[in-house]
Amino acid sequence: MGLKYSKDYTVSYFDADVNSNMKLPNLMSVALEVSGEQSSVLGRSDKYLIDTYGCAWVVLEYKFEITRLPVYEEKLKIVTEATSYNKFFTYRDFVYYDQDGQELVKISSTWSLMNLQERKIENITDEIVAPYHSEKLNKLVRGNKYKKIENYTIEHPYSVRFYDLDINGHVNNTKYFDWLVDVLDDQFLTDYEPTTMYFKYIKEIHYGSQVESKVLVEDSTTYHEIYTGSEKNAQAEIIWRKRNK
Amino acid sequence: MGLKYSKDYTVSYFDADVNSNMKLPNLMSVALEVSGEQSSVLGRSDKYLIDTYGCAWVVLEYKFEITRLPVYEEKLKIVTEATSYNKFFTYRDFVYYDQDGQELVKISSTWSLMNLQERKIENITDEIVAPYHSEKLNKLVRGNKYKKIENYTIEHPYSVRFYDLDINGHVNNTKYFDWLVDVLDDQFLTDYEPTTMYFKYIKEIHYGSQVESKVLVEDSTTYHEIYTGSEKNAQAEIIWRKRNK
Repeated sequence: MGLKYSKDYTVSYFDADVNSNMKLPNLMSVALEVSGEQSSVLGRSDKYLIDTYGCAWVVLEYKFEITRLPVYEEKLKIVTEATSYNKFFTYRDFVYYDQDGQELVKISSTWSLMNLQERKIENITDEIVAPYHSEKLNKLVRGNKYKKIENYTIEHPYSVRFYDLDINGHVNNTKYFDWLVDVLDDQFLTDYEPTTMYFKYIKEIHYGSQVESKVLVEDSTTYHEIYTGSEKNAQAEIIWRKRNK
Repeated sequence: MGLKYSKDYTVSYFDADVNSNMKLPNLMSVALEVSGEQSSVLGRSDKYLIDTYGCAWVVLEYKFEITRLPVYEEKLKIVTEATSYNKFFTYRDFVYYDQDGQELVKISSTWSLMNLQERKIENITDEIVAPYHSEKLNKLVRGNKYKKIENYTIEHPYSVRFYDLDINGHVNNTKYFDWLVDVLDDQFLTDYEPTTMYFKYIKEIHYGSQVESKVLVEDSTTYHEIYTGSEKNAQAEIIWRKRNK
């Protein structure tokens, strides 16, 4: 329903993992660059939002549907669209296409608008989102219902690094994907590839924090939680399938 | 003396650190992309080298001379040139320019050719490097003479992550810069900016290793060593200056 914005992209050497697949954090960050460009083109850059409203978009949830991960040197088209919104949330899709126009990855995302001074969520006005031509909804879109995890198969500590911080001094949410993936062992990551991922951002992580990445592995689904101390900062579920090798 | 190859680049949100400066690993990886493109254009892609000679280029040393770090959203021109070579080494420069043509960063690098099967250094033949029009030298270019470090100001452990591995299963050498920088505290990294960096790659680090990043801080110079157990894998020296704020 919303205006679409697209960009061509070629998977770089530094985007690719040992399986030649585009890394999940890079998949997300490249997509977010494209939506940032759309916002700038439509006169709704991050800087404009801060200067005019004192607000910034914060991501709440992602859903990845992966038909096939892009591979090293592959030429892609990334299309993004702010599909719809209601008073509390906006919804944006990102789709990666291959050169034949086949859909490789679809990322659905849910956002809210944060008042940076007061650190609280603002209502979304028609004015702010008007340029995107998104559909106005009177209902909320249901997110994933996460499994309650009683015990974990693997836990691993990570410290937040200086380069994990973005310009705004926050740990960028794409960095969480590093901790989610890394806690799994390399044999698993070589034998399996992700097909679906749900990710929910709960609470900001600060520089200097010690992060615990915890995972319950059940058959080909992994249930993840990211903690700092007793605080749950994020959770995720990833459904995997055996790689064809 | 060699053929020059250049590319325009805009610093992305994900390239930038909390000071809005382009991160050192990104500065290096973007530059390396450009030289990879040049090699492909000249018929000397990584794949060609492996298929034809069973060899790959491995970096030995970098020297960064930083007039000013690129900043978020800055439009840059990156120029690379394989300047010269001798029997054992090739020398390549990368220069980042701003929109006014001012030099921001110059990276000089030294490479050798590794036989991947035998894991040993090969002699460099004229045939391999001919397309670059590099100058043939009969002497070696002197690298930095590193200070012998007796004791360290700070030491910090890092584990090698799955996403630190590149397509070839090696820890990419740009990842070392993460460990070099991160061991310094954030106050130092906010107060100071790098002006010169020497980096020497000594020995490959494997997945699953525990890395120790050690640094001696003396005035505005930091002396770095990267260890796995008792093995020294890399060393670096960085000269910093107070940031104008």
